[in-house]
Amino acid sequence: MTSFHFELIHRSKKSRARVGRIHTAHGIIDTPNFVGVGTNGTIKTLDNSALHDIGLQLMFCNTYHMLLQPGTEVVRKAGGLHKFINRQMPIITDSGGFQVFSLAYGSVANELKSRGTKQQGGSVLKINEDGVVFRSYYDGKKVLLTPESSIQAQKDLGADIIIPFDELPPYHISPQQLKTSLDRTHRWEKRSLEEHLRNPQGQAIYAVVHGGVNLEMRKASSDFLTSLPFDGYAVGGSLGKTKDELYQVVEATFPWLPDDKPNHLLGIGDLASIEKCIPSGVDTFDSSYPTRSARHGVLLTAKGPLNITKLENAANFAPIEEGCSCLACSQFSIAYIHHLFKAREMTGMNLATIHNLHYMVKLMQKYRERILNDSF
Amino acid sequence: MTSFHFELIHRSKKSRARVGRIHTAHGIIDTPNFVGVGTNGTIKTLDNSALHDIGLQLMFCNTYHMLLQPGTEVVRKAGGLHKFINRQMPIITDSGGFQVFSLAYGSVANELKSRGTKQQGGSVLKINEDGVVFRSYYDGKKVLLTPESSIQAQKDLGADIIIPFDELPPYHISPQQLKTSLDRTHRWEKRSLEEHLRNPQGQAIYAVVHGGVNLEMRKASSDFLTSLPFDGYAVGGSLGKTKDELYQVVEATFPWLPDDKPNHLLGIGDLASIEKCIPSGVDTFDSSYPTRSARHGVLLTAKGPLNITKLENAANFAPIEEGCSCLACSQFSIAYIHHLFKAREMTGMNLATIHNLHYMVKLMQKYRERILNDSF
Repeated sequence: MTSFHFELIHRSKKSRARVGRIHTAHGIIDTPNFVGVGTNGTIKTLDNSALHDIGLQLMFCNTYHMLLQPGTEVVRKAGGLHKFINRQMPIITDSGGFQVFSLAYGSVANELKSRGTKQQGGSVLKINEDGVVFRSYYDGKKVLLTPESSIQAQKDLGADIIIPFDELPPYHISPQQLKTSLDRTHRWEKRSLEEHLRNPQGQAIYAVVHGGVNLEMRKASSDFLTSLPFDGYAVGGSLGKTKDELYQVVEATFPWLPDDKPNHLLGIGDLASIEKCIPSGVDTFDSSYPTRSARHGVLLTAKGPLNITKLENAANFAPIEEGCSCLACSQFSIAYIHHLFKAREMTGMNLATIHNLHYMVKLMQKYRERILNDSF
Repeated sequence: MTSFHFELIHRSKKSRARVGRIHTAHGIIDTPNFVGVGTNGTIKTLDNSALHDIGLQLMFCNTYHMLLQPGTEVVRKAGGLHKFINRQMPIITDSGGFQVFSLAYGSVANELKSRGTKQQGGSVLKINEDGVVFRSYYDGKKVLLTPESSIQAQKDLGADIIIPFDELPPYHISPQQLKTSLDRTHRWEKRSLEEHLRNPQGQAIYAVVHGGVNLEMRKASSDFLTSLPFDGYAVGGSLGKTKDELYQVVEATFPWLPDDKPNHLLGIGDLASIEKCIPSGVDTFDSSYPTRSARHGVLLTAKGPLNITKLENAANFAPIEEGCSCLACSQFSIAYIHHLFKAREMTGMNLATIHNLHYMVKLMQKYRERILNDSF
């Protein structure tokens, strides 16, 4: 079994952008790369054999969702996530913290990205030093999530890369509250690492650097976490209200991470952010943006997004993108996919998802080429 | 281009069951066979390349639906249905009559199959000798459907097999009303045939034998329609309240159809009916039963239907059916597909549909083998 390591292939002469290769027991992840989000163990509308054909090298699964359905016990019995979902390529899981704290502090997309301050309370029953108790949306049972239980769940799942349990404080928080949260997150991440190291099982663990949009705290978090033997580093938590805040955090934080380990930017993967963040040396980006857009009929092309449901597409018999080798482009026309969306056929969403993911795979390949020949 | 014809290969020594081959410009249909229903130009949840892999030889598309969205004009411009939907194998379209009269007389599944007598009126505005005027559910426009316009729509679509415009009288109707309807249907079918013969375009046209559960009228309908140069014969209209009524109509009617032409049983394709009707010499069956069942989590197996959503399947890591070579069985377990259904992932419906259609393809192959060696 290949042991997990990062191979730095080329550092751009023009920026901190870098090309590398993450080696895992389930194959290579060329970086920079895009990570598809398959929350429940599948990219929505696709099966994992289709995903294999697209060549998406890393897939994100959410521990919170898998914990509640089917339960990580079932996945363990199946022989782990790779066997359960039939994926031969690398998988990364998160800790469940993001979802649980979204319940506590408001929805992920809204509060953490700061579109509102509403605190929903959700079904989180208790948060203390030990961890979080919440009520399962699935069957109403109480579930305790701690650094140790999150890691155990991720041991059951058996992904190639796992993530320590962390707190996601709301964006609207005082510096003192942020500091308190950061300290606890650090204690939780350390406990997670210790739990992991009792039985590494060939998995790699990425720390999550926190600190919100406060760069001093980002630095403190980077310093603390890079002093511990994590295998890689993710940048997470609140990344600000605006793209500019995001870019500031990214530009400041990534240079503080060790050069010889892979890094990841959590939950960001829209086209503009990828373009803007690669020069800071980001290796991997995960986002549900391309797949969610696809299900809403927004198709990615070199000329910009194509809204497939628009009437002007009704009799356009060209492919979504000339020269694209994906199943959707090589076999079907814009007019047909438009028709499938209009007729509310799931097949439309399926073809759109295939195209958008394929687009991301090719896009990242192009970024790597541009970095390799120093034209980026 | 192969001209349409039926090749009789073997007649069972034990019954009227027969094995044959329908030759079309888009390939062969081995009979008896199952016809998948792809209302809007796709089998729900599948794309047509997946369908090709499954080997479903004949696919049904609904003219009524294609007329309203995307419009048959768009399909004509695309170069016909085969090109538009990217299917290389045979296609059959219906006339639109079934859907329009379901609007007029109540829903297909209920009134025509006689589970109720409610007449909904729907959005049918006028029915007279010329045809039917109805309001499009899609954009509210008035649409005139006549024998001639239905055939023209089917010329635009360009399926291998087309169907004349007919009236579908409700089940609850007096013998006199049934006779009146039957006479009009015959006039409409003749007009449809004449319209078709002005420009056959390599398409075959199957008459639709009517008469409800009244065998005398079924005989009169068979006699009238077989006197006209149709390329094949379908048995349609109300096929009764119960399976017994269906079997009586089938047993009586199919022997009245010419031996040298293919025949079809419209809208019937559940497992019990297929088993019971093949001995009457039925060549093809269409039904949305296997695909609709799949989307509800009911999977067809030799041991009977498997309800994938049942809790007992949560940790069953066997395939749906041992030895089945479909994508779902060769790559995924019952437990995973169960999980996908529980997590409301469309991928579950997709895999279930693939399995059920593959099951039907294999089932019909087995029937043909049993007829060929006279064991059925």
